[in-house]
Amino acid sequence: MILDIINKKRLGKELSYKEIDYFFNGYLDGQITDYQMSSLLMAICINGMTDEETFSLTKIFIDSGDILDFSDIEGIKVDKHSTGGIGDKTTLIIAPIVASLGIPVIKMSGRGLGYTGGTIDKIESIPGFKINLKESDIRQQVMDIGIVLTGQTKDLVPMDKVIYALRDVTATVSSIPLIASSIMSKKIASGADKILIDVKYGSGALLKTKEEAKELSSLMKKIGEVYGREVRTIISDMNVPLGRCIGNAIEVEEAIEVLKGKEDSNNLYSLCIDLATEMVSMGKEIPNEDAKKLVIESIDNGKALKKFKELVEYQKGNIKGIKISDKTISIKSEENGEIKKINALELGKLALALGAGKLKKNDRIDHSVGIKLNKLVGDSVKKGDILMTLYVKNDTLDVNIDDIFTIE
Amino acid sequence: MILDIINKKRLGKELSYKEIDYFFNGYLDGQITDYQMSSLLMAICINGMTDEETFSLTKIFIDSGDILDFSDIEGIKVDKHSTGGIGDKTTLIIAPIVASLGIPVIKMSGRGLGYTGGTIDKIESIPGFKINLKESDIRQQVMDIGIVLTGQTKDLVPMDKVIYALRDVTATVSSIPLIASSIMSKKIASGADKILIDVKYGSGALLKTKEEAKELSSLMKKIGEVYGREVRTIISDMNVPLGRCIGNAIEVEEAIEVLKGKEDSNNLYSLCIDLATEMVSMGKEIPNEDAKKLVIESIDNGKALKKFKELVEYQKGNIKGIKISDKTISIKSEENGEIKKINALELGKLALALGAGKLKKNDRIDHSVGIKLNKLVGDSVKKGDILMTLYVKNDTLDVNIDDIFTIE
Repeated sequence: MILDIINKKRLGKELSYKEIDYFFNGYLDGQITDYQMSSLLMAICINGMTDEETFSLTKIFIDSGDILDFSDIEGIKVDKHSTGGIGDKTTLIIAPIVASLGIPVIKMSGRGLGYTGGTIDKIESIPGFKINLKESDIRQQVMDIGIVLTGQTKDLVPMDKVIYALRDVTATVSSIPLIASSIMSKKIASGADKILIDVKYGSGALLKTKEEAKELSSLMKKIGEVYGREVRTIISDMNVPLGRCIGNAIEVEEAIEVLKGKEDSNNLYSLCIDLATEMVSMGKEIPNEDAKKLVIESIDNGKALKKFKELVEYQKGNIKGIKISDKTISIKSEENGEIKKINALELGKLALALGAGKLKKNDRIDHSVGIKLNKLVGDSVKKGDILMTLYVKNDTLDVNIDDIFTIE
Repeated sequence: MILDIINKKRLGKELSYKEIDYFFNGYLDGQITDYQMSSLLMAICINGMTDEETFSLTKIFIDSGDILDFSDIEGIKVDKHSTGGIGDKTTLIIAPIVASLGIPVIKMSGRGLGYTGGTIDKIESIPGFKINLKESDIRQQVMDIGIVLTGQTKDLVPMDKVIYALRDVTATVSSIPLIASSIMSKKIASGADKILIDVKYGSGALLKTKEEAKELSSLMKKIGEVYGREVRTIISDMNVPLGRCIGNAIEVEEAIEVLKGKEDSNNLYSLCIDLATEMVSMGKEIPNEDAKKLVIESIDNGKALKKFKELVEYQKGNIKGIKISDKTISIKSEENGEIKKINALELGKLALALGAGKLKKNDRIDHSVGIKLNKLVGDSVKKGDILMTLYVKNDTLDVNIDDIFTIE
């Protein structure tokens, strides 16, 4: 039976709900081994899954744990997810914007396993910030201040946790149906009424091409339909990093700057406006143009920033305790010209080398290290100009400028 | 590095010798886990390997263990391998034929993991027959009587042993480049000068179509060229079982009947003549037509049978001790008509259910059980005629005749 199922997918045939259920729950129960699961996952990566198979897997994922229900809380709960990228701190900016407009925001985020931290790692740069909230605490906090930012509760889609850990070490992450069922099962199980997904593509993202991003987007909308949840997506470019800052504490600082109305970065402010607009449009059931006005207003009148501070305070964080390393290295241009490209992936690798991310589960993140870009794509530079500043723990570091900046 | 290599093959790209070496030797050293290897193996199964990759893997396999050298023994050493099928006892027949004609035969065989035993399991039906010979014993025996039949020495391609065990439980067996490198590495490491491969296809074989059999055949010839070994292949049909008998002791008895000159079976005698002809043609460097005459002669004048008995005696076997179960079940036809098809795969499953094979390494084979076909394809049958006799240990058995025989 086990080998028959793997063979079927090896030959590119469609698995039934019963077969997928048998295999994945068998793995969770310990009846099916890691090496059998990774063999099937690779067959799925290469041969794909039909929509029906993806719906089945999503259902099996959801059913593996608790299903949260916040329907007693007034208002349309809109959740947002990003497929991840270098310098992505959008959650820290848009969650307070949306909440400041009266839409309840229950945001459960993950930790990063890769080049930099996830949202939860980033917010932990704020000393004291509590991130492991129970369902009852979440409910109380949303009623009190309309916003909560927490790690996933322990029993939310436990199957996704074990499968994701295996995918991560077997090169079976890049599969559109596997990504779709992983994301959507968590969003649906966490009780969101409507869902916005920021689907990223490019060198710094999991998906390399816009076509793949569109395919994932369309598949997640179909899953949403099955569960009667409106799903909107924004497809965004991750060939260049998002904003100027990459790290943890340094990204929180940058998020605060954006909440203060600073449009300093090339792409971060505008993406945040777009994402918040979609969420407000869904949450208030109003057209995008009306939503956009409200979003910009909430930044301009300081309500979004105020909501952010309220959130941090409620969760016992000390915003003044954020610490960025005072040991810095300036990376200077060795030539004159214009910056044509900045390689997000290489910046991610550099951030990891600095200690801002982790490759293995037990690695520790250094929240104080990071990178700040002084020059962005399109800027002209002279020899000796600072291209970026590295906030480091150790002085010795090997940086190959040409890997990151294309100057012509 | 580990994930980069898996990803490369996932995307269907060619791996370098260095990458394959790193991965497979890393697995043997315990640096790479079972689940990472099975992920790569599945990617190879689906996306294939180029000829260059297959040559690399074959070399890495060979280099993982001892390389035997029988060049001091006079004569061209011709080895034969079968990709395996239901009722395949050809080795027991052709090895004595070839040896009786003065060509040294050093035959290292495997055990079966599947529906029935391998050659080594079958020969163990002869009580006392020693099958774990050391290299020095092998050498001495070939000098004394010109033939030896033994299990593989312990250090012959150890990497193939561990990889095969993993493939077997992860549905990654059916890959032409993996099969080719597995077979050819063992044949080359065991010191054969020339190699004959019986490539089987059909319902009872690993490869289902003639096209796949041709592809495997051509790939093994290319590997042979790299090592300067002549490789010939015979592509043979395994949709119907080979001969009338399936089991272990019962197959040894059938082999002896063929050595006595009985042409009773539909296809066994003729395949043995063809295989032995190729081996004699290679070993004596004579045309096939001349070789065929010698082969038939050696059966007709009893020299082949004599050589078989000499072999058994030298390896301490007691041919009179072969025991076939005296508890039998006759399976009778329920209709009149002609036998259109006999399903080899279903017969294999039945043999396994009787206890003639093993699915797990620690299962025990019952040498005395088996199946004897009373009717073959093309025979006409009447209701009540015996289709086959089962030699069993237990009386209760559920046989679905229609799965095996197509009578119209």
